[in-house]
Amino acid sequence: MDKLMIYLPLVMAILGLVFMGVKALWVNKQNAGDAKMQEISKSIQEGAMAFLKAEYRILAVFVVIASVALFVVSQLVETSHWMIVVAFVFGAIFSALAGNIGMRIATNSNVRTTQAAKTSLPQALQVSFGGGTVMGLGVAGLAVLGLSIFFLIFLNQFMGVEGKSFYDNMTLVLETLAGFSLGAESIALFARVGGGIYTKAADVGADLVGKVEAGIPEDDPRNPATIADNVGDNVGDVAGMGADLFGSYVATVLASMVLGNYIIKDMTDASGTPFTDNFEGLGPIILPLVIAGVGILASIIGTFFVRIKSNDAKEAQVQAALNLGNYVSLGLTVVACWFLIDMMLPETISMNFFGEGIKEIPSRHVFYATLVGLGVGLFISAITEYYTALGKKPVLSIVQNSSTGAATNIIAGLAIGMKSTFGSVILFAAAIWGAYALAGFYGVAIAASAMMATTAMQLAIDAFGPIADNAGGIAEMSELPKEVRQRTDVLDSVGNTTAAVGKGFAIASAALTALALFAAYVTFTGIDGINIFKADVLAALFVGGMIPVVFSALAMQSVGKAAMDMVNEVRRQFREIPGIMDGTGKPEYGKCVDISTKAALREMMLPGAITIITPIILGFAMGAEALGGYMAGVCVSGVLWAIFQNNAGGAWDNAKKSFEAGVLINGEMTYKGSDAHKAAVTGDTVGDPFKDTSGPSMNILIKLTCLVGLVIAPLLGQGHATTKEVAASCCKEMSANCASMSIEECKAKGCKNSNCKIISAAEETVVSETVGDTTTTTTEVTKQDGTNVAVEKAVTVEKNEAKK
Amino acid sequence: MDKLMIYLPLVMAILGLVFMGVKALWVNKQNAGDAKMQEISKSIQEGAMAFLKAEYRILAVFVVIASVALFVVSQLVETSHWMIVVAFVFGAIFSALAGNIGMRIATNSNVRTTQAAKTSLPQALQVSFGGGTVMGLGVAGLAVLGLSIFFLIFLNQFMGVEGKSFYDNMTLVLETLAGFSLGAESIALFARVGGGIYTKAADVGADLVGKVEAGIPEDDPRNPATIADNVGDNVGDVAGMGADLFGSYVATVLASMVLGNYIIKDMTDASGTPFTDNFEGLGPIILPLVIAGVGILASIIGTFFVRIKSNDAKEAQVQAALNLGNYVSLGLTVVACWFLIDMMLPETISMNFFGEGIKEIPSRHVFYATLVGLGVGLFISAITEYYTALGKKPVLSIVQNSSTGAATNIIAGLAIGMKSTFGSVILFAAAIWGAYALAGFYGVAIAASAMMATTAMQLAIDAFGPIADNAGGIAEMSELPKEVRQRTDVLDSVGNTTAAVGKGFAIASAALTALALFAAYVTFTGIDGINIFKADVLAALFVGGMIPVVFSALAMQSVGKAAMDMVNEVRRQFREIPGIMDGTGKPEYGKCVDISTKAALREMMLPGAITIITPIILGFAMGAEALGGYMAGVCVSGVLWAIFQNNAGGAWDNAKKSFEAGVLINGEMTYKGSDAHKAAVTGDTVGDPFKDTSGPSMNILIKLTCLVGLVIAPLLGQGHATTKEVAASCCKEMSANCASMSIEECKAKGCKNSNCKIISAAEETVVSETVGDTTTTTTEVTKQDGTNVAVEKAVTVEKNEAKK
Repeated sequence: MDKLMIYLPLVMAILGLVFMGVKALWVNKQNAGDAKMQEISKSIQEGAMAFLKAEYRILAVFVVIASVALFVVSQLVETSHWMIVVAFVFGAIFSALAGNIGMRIATNSNVRTTQAAKTSLPQALQVSFGGGTVMGLGVAGLAVLGLSIFFLIFLNQFMGVEGKSFYDNMTLVLETLAGFSLGAESIALFARVGGGIYTKAADVGADLVGKVEAGIPEDDPRNPATIADNVGDNVGDVAGMGADLFGSYVATVLASMVLGNYIIKDMTDASGTPFTDNFEGLGPIILPLVIAGVGILASIIGTFFVRIKSNDAKEAQVQAALNLGNYVSLGLTVVACWFLIDMMLPETISMNFFGEGIKEIPSRHVFYATLVGLGVGLFISAITEYYTALGKKPVLSIVQNSSTGAATNIIAGLAIGMKSTFGSVILFAAAIWGAYALAGFYGVAIAASAMMATTAMQLAIDAFGPIADNAGGIAEMSELPKEVRQRTDVLDSVGNTTAAVGKGFAIASAALTALALFAAYVTFTGIDGINIFKADVLAALFVGGMIPVVFSALAMQSVGKAAMDMVNEVRRQFREIPGIMDGTGKPEYGKCVDISTKAALREMMLPGAITIITPIILGFAMGAEALGGYMAGVCVSGVLWAIFQNNAGGAWDNAKKSFEAGVLINGEMTYKGSDAHKAAVTGDTVGDPFKDTSGPSMNILIKLTCLVGLVIAPLLGQGHATTKEVAASCCKEMSANCASMSIEECKAKGCKNSNCKIISAAEETVVSETVGDTTTTTTEVTKQDGTNVAVEKAVTVEKNEAKK
Repeated sequence: MDKLMIYLPLVMAILGLVFMGVKALWVNKQNAGDAKMQEISKSIQEGAMAFLKAEYRILAVFVVIASVALFVVSQLVETSHWMIVVAFVFGAIFSALAGNIGMRIATNSNVRTTQAAKTSLPQALQVSFGGGTVMGLGVAGLAVLGLSIFFLIFLNQFMGVEGKSFYDNMTLVLETLAGFSLGAESIALFARVGGGIYTKAADVGADLVGKVEAGIPEDDPRNPATIADNVGDNVGDVAGMGADLFGSYVATVLASMVLGNYIIKDMTDASGTPFTDNFEGLGPIILPLVIAGVGILASIIGTFFVRIKSNDAKEAQVQAALNLGNYVSLGLTVVACWFLIDMMLPETISMNFFGEGIKEIPSRHVFYATLVGLGVGLFISAITEYYTALGKKPVLSIVQNSSTGAATNIIAGLAIGMKSTFGSVILFAAAIWGAYALAGFYGVAIAASAMMATTAMQLAIDAFGPIADNAGGIAEMSELPKEVRQRTDVLDSVGNTTAAVGKGFAIASAALTALALFAAYVTFTGIDGINIFKADVLAALFVGGMIPVVFSALAMQSVGKAAMDMVNEVRRQFREIPGIMDGTGKPEYGKCVDISTKAALREMMLPGAITIITPIILGFAMGAEALGGYMAGVCVSGVLWAIFQNNAGGAWDNAKKSFEAGVLINGEMTYKGSDAHKAAVTGDTVGDPFKDTSGPSMNILIKLTCLVGLVIAPLLGQGHATTKEVAASCCKEMSANCASMSIEECKAKGCKNSNCKIISAAEETVVSETVGDTTTTTTEVTKQDGTNVAVEKAVTVEKNEAKK
């Protein structure tokens, strides 16, 4: 029975995908409304699919080039295998598939939500959340499916190789599996950046000419960019986010598995005998995968709790329904984690804490680490909500500062975004410290895994937002009665909050995952830490810190350029198409869709290339430790800029929204159309690329940087440490003259650093005896080197003579 | 003769101060114009002095509290002394004095520049640059004077203590001297932040109501905030910047001296005999001080080259004159460095490179490091100029984006600032790497020292800008003929460029200085590096990265709040004072000055407190290595945010200025007053606190963080490393079981890490012989422990038996 545990994730993944299919059928069976509505919906779907197709064509080229490079790498390094290319390609395909499923269901759900909203708000919620559920389960199901299948294949392929330890064989399994994650994350990067540029170019372009210049409302059918705007919601907020979370999910589980393998090594080292348990010695490695599988089930159960009864429900009730579903999933996950950890991990775990040696950890500490992860998820949501929600102090301060113009509004918004880093970073730092203290880097990774376990639920909640947003757009464009729009607006408004919270959640999970990957990287390269007191490592840390800033700049500039193209096209149509403003002329929606598509695809190249190529160049030029410094720089700076940009953007958005209900400024009620409102609109426009393009891309930048490092790690370890260098790096603490030592001399000095690959201590006995001023120390070490086992004995005699 | 070299800096400092006095007398002798001009100038001077007085009162309280704390620390730690308090107080007083001298001369020069501009542009340049020279020499002279005197006193006091090595005695000298630097940098922090808030509150307040609401030009005497605005130029750009560079200068020289002491230790360790040279064994330590002294002379000579001949000179000629003076100073400094390094350093230097052991470095490598420093200074100026200068691509892109409104202008400006981090960070990273490769951390520190050597000249060029700015304001307010304003505008415009370049220079020097301080910190604490693979160090790195962001947010919000107060006051005066707009009623300038003063002083508290207190708390809670991670985080993030904010602000400013001469947008010439210009004004207003408040504060934040760490370093080393911990940290690379070792066992294992303070290897002979499968290694080490010299002999016999 226990041995079958390895198949549990696979079963859960299939269950999730089956439930997804059932739910998708149900959504598609719903009434899709009248001809006009269907026509609009079809335009949106066609635009979105056209974008995806064009994007996939370009990405296919990228995948081919990257595959060749990966193949070459896999041939150069002993600890890699060409199958990493297969995993990479499937990772890319699965990610694209997940985005595709999400996009299809979202563009089917939107018009059906509009139709449902004609009669009933509860039904509208069911349809839109149903669409979200399909997407969430698609992403989670495909992720767990892909990871499980490839893990089983590689396990079968690489384990049990003669003369290699379990740890070494498993390292090859996981190193190859990293290809799946790399494929997923690469696609995610382009999808996020491309989608982000698309959606904001269309949005900003539509707003600048439509709302500001022509004075027509949002989603007005006379605005030529309005279809592109709605397509943007799908390619950015649905497909982009889906690919993002697909990548996070896979990377988190993978990193936990790598660190699980490290536990098996530590326990073998500590006891001297190979690690065994009821799961064929795989317990700590498959635990994160099993948690992910169970999380799918918990999410499915949670979805049944998301429902409202009253047709007059307001935002609060809808939010409460979503929260209930979320809490049910989380609660079930916590309970499952308790039992799974109890069952799958040894009661006491021997774990090597860096610089502190082997410690004995009770397995319930790992459970506490999962609580740390869930706690981070909850707290980061609370912090994000505080800084971005309507009616809270930060947003109100931006509203107040709007009264003196756009400049003070911008300054206030920037300051809020910057200030919001305080609580978030303290939270992350505490979580890193806490989870590490509980269960080492495995604890950090498991914390991230627990956070991500309910990804399906989280994504269902996230994805329902843009569906409702689209539904409102369709209602407006088909000129339906006002109450339809009011109902969809309730859903849309809740969707805005869940979107902001979802971004906080995504960055938190990215931060923890990146740390776990970082730890895995250090293990894979075999370096003994990342010391920023070395000038080259410090220099790399600076360069790493700069990358997220330049990346953000490029993303923002891309939005600016693409929006300019859009503005010019819309202006041209207003000028050249007769009767467009009185509704007798039909705008050329397709041209605007084309412009966004082309701009997004053109502009996603440079930031994408920088992310992938920089760590490779730096790693080969400066070595493994410097690359570690670079990764840390990217993580620290990336997390800061993500929080800053997401929260500033969210706060500006809601400051603008505050004027819809009216706000009290200097004792006077101020509404839409006032000068203060115009200032707030400016702030929102600045915030758009912040929160929807550059900000959310930071997660992927962070994770992908660490993943690229992880994949090239074995190459760096092999290619750059000459025999002499290795010795110098091993023994640097032992003697100032170590630079002149060979590995043999280094060993002779008693070095037991794992970097000296030829030997690795399996068992050591030290007997020390002092007689008078002479100390005799006898050290006996049993060593293992692939096929050979050797016992070495070293005797040190030391005499102290006072001379003076 | 050579022994007298130690007095050379003192002589140069006095020479600089004498020349300053002569120059000040000359400036004050110039015609101060008519009664109205003098009245305005007097109002500005009174406002500025009132601010300084109020600021010094608060800072006196701070100095008293900090002194008590420092005294307590000095009593707790063996390697500290109560005299650090004296040094601290004098550092604070000298810094305040330097700011005071600068402010006095600037407020005397401004009206005399206006008067000179009535007849001649060359004369106006002489007067304004004369004022700048006084300030530059005051800062540099006082800095070198203070450092030299205290160094001589402490040398006399602490050297030659029986039973302690030269290195240990000198460490006490330099640790105590660090008090002077800490005092200077603390005052600098408050002066920079307070001054920055003051100047921008007044500027933004004056602009928002005056220019935007009332539609009157800048510096119009009807605007009640106009005097406060001109006072702000002095307290922010003159006093604040003077204190900033005073602090940088002192910190740079100090850090180089500390690392010079490390060289002496390494050379003693390598040769086994105490280091000697013709400078009483002080060569590497006093070299940076001597370079600073010679730099004063080079600057004085350079000032004679700053002159123009034609009354019709344009910006280019004025800039060329300033550049000539600058290049002469730099050239003289390079030549002086060549001879000084050749004379004062041993031909071959033994230097311990972290993780690589002792290397032999020819002394000319140190000279090359000075070239690296000067190169960084030149390149960073070029990069800064590219991103912020009129007519270059970045500023033009902001201009173009202004045509679609404030939002696109802001996005473009933010993106430019963010992109500008690329070249700057690559430059810093290359410099760190290069200078370190040449001559270790001493090379990095000497590079910074060389950059800062011509501080007097640099500051003269910087300070002339605000003097010219003020002169223009006085011309406007006294309603002088148009050509007077045109002449001062030429100077002002050049001043804007030199200000932006000066900021780049300041951040470059801060970055290099911080690294040198960082290296000194690691040495003082005796930790063996800062390993970010440890979870607590990594957590601290994150927290450190967040501090500059939150600091910037607080500074910006403070400007916002203070500007609001100002706006309300100006509006009240326009409303309540009859005849103010037609010039018959007199505005109450004093009230606006008061508001700025109070706001600045109130708002500087929190950011100042965070900077000083956070590292102290973190250091004691998490230990020395985590504090090192924190410092690195502050440095990396601080450098990025400084560059981002300074350059974005500078670019916005010049984008707005571009409209004065007219710009081509979409084929149409666009001028002041257009919608695009209004959008550009919004961008400039956002940029103001960026470039004048939060951006420039980053330097001080970085340096002060490292200085605070340096001062508490011995306390952390002592209080937190128990015997067992020290052993564990020494031997972690030697055995996984080291956690269970005592220091004695650790030594028995052959550990030679300097952290094991009880012994330090002075001489080591290793003889290794292999017969068959047995290797016998005999190591003989001569060890020194305060008063005792011991010879230890260790014999290692190793046998390898194949077992299988």
